[in-house]
Amino acid sequence: MSEANEFDCDLVLHGARVVAPAGDVDGGGIAVRDGRIVSVGPDAELAAWRSGANEVVDASGQLLAPGLVNTHCHAGDSLFRGLVENLSLEAWLEKVWIAESAILDPHTTSLGAQLGLAENLLAGVTSVFDMFWFPDTAAEAARQLGMRVATGGLFFDGVGIDGKEQAVRLDEARAFCETWRDEPLVTPSLNPHATYTVGPQQLEGVARLAEETGALVTVHAAETRQEQSTARERFDATVLQHLEAVGLLGPQTVLAHCVHLEPGDLEIIRATDSTVAHNPVSNLKLGSGIAPVPEMLDAGVRVTLGTDGPISGNDMDPWLGLRLAAILHKGRTMNPTTVSARQAFDMATVRGAEAMRLDTGVLEAGRLADFILLDLDGPHATPLFDAVHHLVFAAGRADVRDVYVGGRRVVENRRLVHLDLDAVREEIGRLAPRIAATLEGAAG
Amino acid sequence: MSEANEFDCDLVLHGARVVAPAGDVDGGGIAVRDGRIVSVGPDAELAAWRSGANEVVDASGQLLAPGLVNTHCHAGDSLFRGLVENLSLEAWLEKVWIAESAILDPHTTSLGAQLGLAENLLAGVTSVFDMFWFPDTAAEAARQLGMRVATGGLFFDGVGIDGKEQAVRLDEARAFCETWRDEPLVTPSLNPHATYTVGPQQLEGVARLAEETGALVTVHAAETRQEQSTARERFDATVLQHLEAVGLLGPQTVLAHCVHLEPGDLEIIRATDSTVAHNPVSNLKLGSGIAPVPEMLDAGVRVTLGTDGPISGNDMDPWLGLRLAAILHKGRTMNPTTVSARQAFDMATVRGAEAMRLDTGVLEAGRLADFILLDLDGPHATPLFDAVHHLVFAAGRADVRDVYVGGRRVVENRRLVHLDLDAVREEIGRLAPRIAATLEGAAG
Repeated sequence: MSEANEFDCDLVLHGARVVAPAGDVDGGGIAVRDGRIVSVGPDAELAAWRSGANEVVDASGQLLAPGLVNTHCHAGDSLFRGLVENLSLEAWLEKVWIAESAILDPHTTSLGAQLGLAENLLAGVTSVFDMFWFPDTAAEAARQLGMRVATGGLFFDGVGIDGKEQAVRLDEARAFCETWRDEPLVTPSLNPHATYTVGPQQLEGVARLAEETGALVTVHAAETRQEQSTARERFDATVLQHLEAVGLLGPQTVLAHCVHLEPGDLEIIRATDSTVAHNPVSNLKLGSGIAPVPEMLDAGVRVTLGTDGPISGNDMDPWLGLRLAAILHKGRTMNPTTVSARQAFDMATVRGAEAMRLDTGVLEAGRLADFILLDLDGPHATPLFDAVHHLVFAAGRADVRDVYVGGRRVVENRRLVHLDLDAVREEIGRLAPRIAATLEGAAG
Repeated sequence: MSEANEFDCDLVLHGARVVAPAGDVDGGGIAVRDGRIVSVGPDAELAAWRSGANEVVDASGQLLAPGLVNTHCHAGDSLFRGLVENLSLEAWLEKVWIAESAILDPHTTSLGAQLGLAENLLAGVTSVFDMFWFPDTAAEAARQLGMRVATGGLFFDGVGIDGKEQAVRLDEARAFCETWRDEPLVTPSLNPHATYTVGPQQLEGVARLAEETGALVTVHAAETRQEQSTARERFDATVLQHLEAVGLLGPQTVLAHCVHLEPGDLEIIRATDSTVAHNPVSNLKLGSGIAPVPEMLDAGVRVTLGTDGPISGNDMDPWLGLRLAAILHKGRTMNPTTVSARQAFDMATVRGAEAMRLDTGVLEAGRLADFILLDLDGPHATPLFDAVHHLVFAAGRADVRDVYVGGRRVVENRRLVHLDLDAVREEIGRLAPRIAATLEGAAG
């Protein structure tokens, strides 16, 4: 038996166009050992690793980039994709809740989680921050698919769509944290819905549990003007002042949306080192508005991207969100230099990883080996002068060919390695008439 | 020899989900004779046609929809895709023109036209209104690809990037109309660039030639605030007042952009029955702003969609434009019921066909048989409650599997039938270093 070589490794990819931290490398790759990147660079620099690799992959003609991070998602809602359209927000939510109440149980929710997370993974998302009922289903689905998820107990006041009383929610959420503590793909989180659906006492309980468990936290915040008015009426405070008062802000917390910030709110977010998850597709489709992202970036706030759920989508296309993050604010401010392609790409990758406390989002030695390979043979990839500009302004979900999480290939030639998606789609197809029937007779 | 049967036809597709004028048909298809649709409906109603068809295609599991119409495009600019980024509009245009001047000749422009029109066709666009130098190249490329194009003489003041004097432009444009008059895939048009680049005398000449030839017309109009200021300074008029004064407005004219309308402009557009081509991706990326589309629709103006060129894209994805047409204005106005999915889809299809005087855009008997088949096996197509909502809010370019123009299949299983795209891409790849070099030393 030969002595262990310092260049022994599990996997080397070579020949790719690489989105490396210092700029594009044309004709390069990556070496992976024990789930982490050990080297990134031109093929010549990787030669020693290549000779010590268990597996060598020729990635010629492909673009090698970090996996995307989706920091706001309700994957299980994919069961209701496209069910309710062209309504004002209140009427829309009412119908969504009717359908969810009639359909969701651990089995159907598991189908929704599998479909929704599969959609993310096939599009090149390697980590998702998910908020939904029966959160074990998303954790199980992610573990099966081989991707990362942060999720955990969902908090609402009163009896939930899961049929559980408010009183048991803290204990259930604590149990989730304990159950999933040792699964490397799952990061436990606490997910209070919003300030208008969860009272101050329950929010304070969540804050204490976050302190106790070290869990991540996510909450909808300042999504609509109505939400700010409600907070003003009930608490004589802005949404952000109220979240700070109940102790929920901090670097562990991802605030979904923040479309309507009041004076002082941005400074609270920055001072507490909380994260804003920007969801441009959902905010547009639901008529919520356009979040002040350039102002957030100028203030030094950490901004990440989310797809939101597929009922405000109606898909979860991280590339659409990335494109909009880069172009929407140029249009709103009539300034074509605001939110650079690089800033948008960082929001979709390394900023999201920071928010989820993951050592991913950049292709550099020492980081977890979460990465994607994209085809470059589409007409929209010719010519290609700069890889990040291509990814932000031209690439799309269908370009993603292979996806690796922790050095393990989980999508191969656009197919999931570990889940039979057709079987899931067929079962949901059989369920669809029952889903549609939930709204028969519902006021529209 | 048997007697000609009333159900003899060239092609029947069956088993599809059909976007029919009266709503979805699940399990239906289309019959085609001599390039036109002769029947659309459920499979049972098509049985007689099927028995008389030369070719029968099983389209089970696919969505059958009208081909998309792209009413504003500069296909040839695909040579410069992604070359110039993160600049204000003036600095951006200056660099684009440096690169175009150095590179464009009939051969390179032909490569750009082939690549750009191929990108459109593969995405399901069956008709393009194109404005670019050396317009014969786009007409030739469309004829080769088997798709429809409207294009023709491009008008600028002074010597153009094509090296030609202003004085010859009208004659050249007239000659183009004569050359292409009998090609069914090509609709001649006259393409003055804009009111700030083409003086009143030349615009009046174009208007007279449009009258003489019956050609379509397209012009950039009210794209930026600056453009309106310039018209006010030079002509003491709004852009639309000026275009009306030189005689250029009417049902033959497609006005690209109309982001910044002054009081009265909308009424001029409506009263002259001119068309507005909305280009949301370009308007956002270049920081031009957000066009008042709901106001246009309320005023009864015909609104269509355009991708604009791939240097303000950096791709030409008609599905992205369609999605934005449906969601951007909901976000801007904070009204989730403005611009319905159906209105957006009509903009992308039948409204565009009307503007280009094409008998396409709806799957009904008598129309030209321009249609597309989309795969429904992606996770984003499960479940699928309504086909138009799916097309507007979830579908994407990579779902387009087959494209037919005039009943002739021109894209088959995502490959062009009549053009070797790889050869075009390779030649442009060899040209790319020369393209990049045009900007070396250019002030940034």
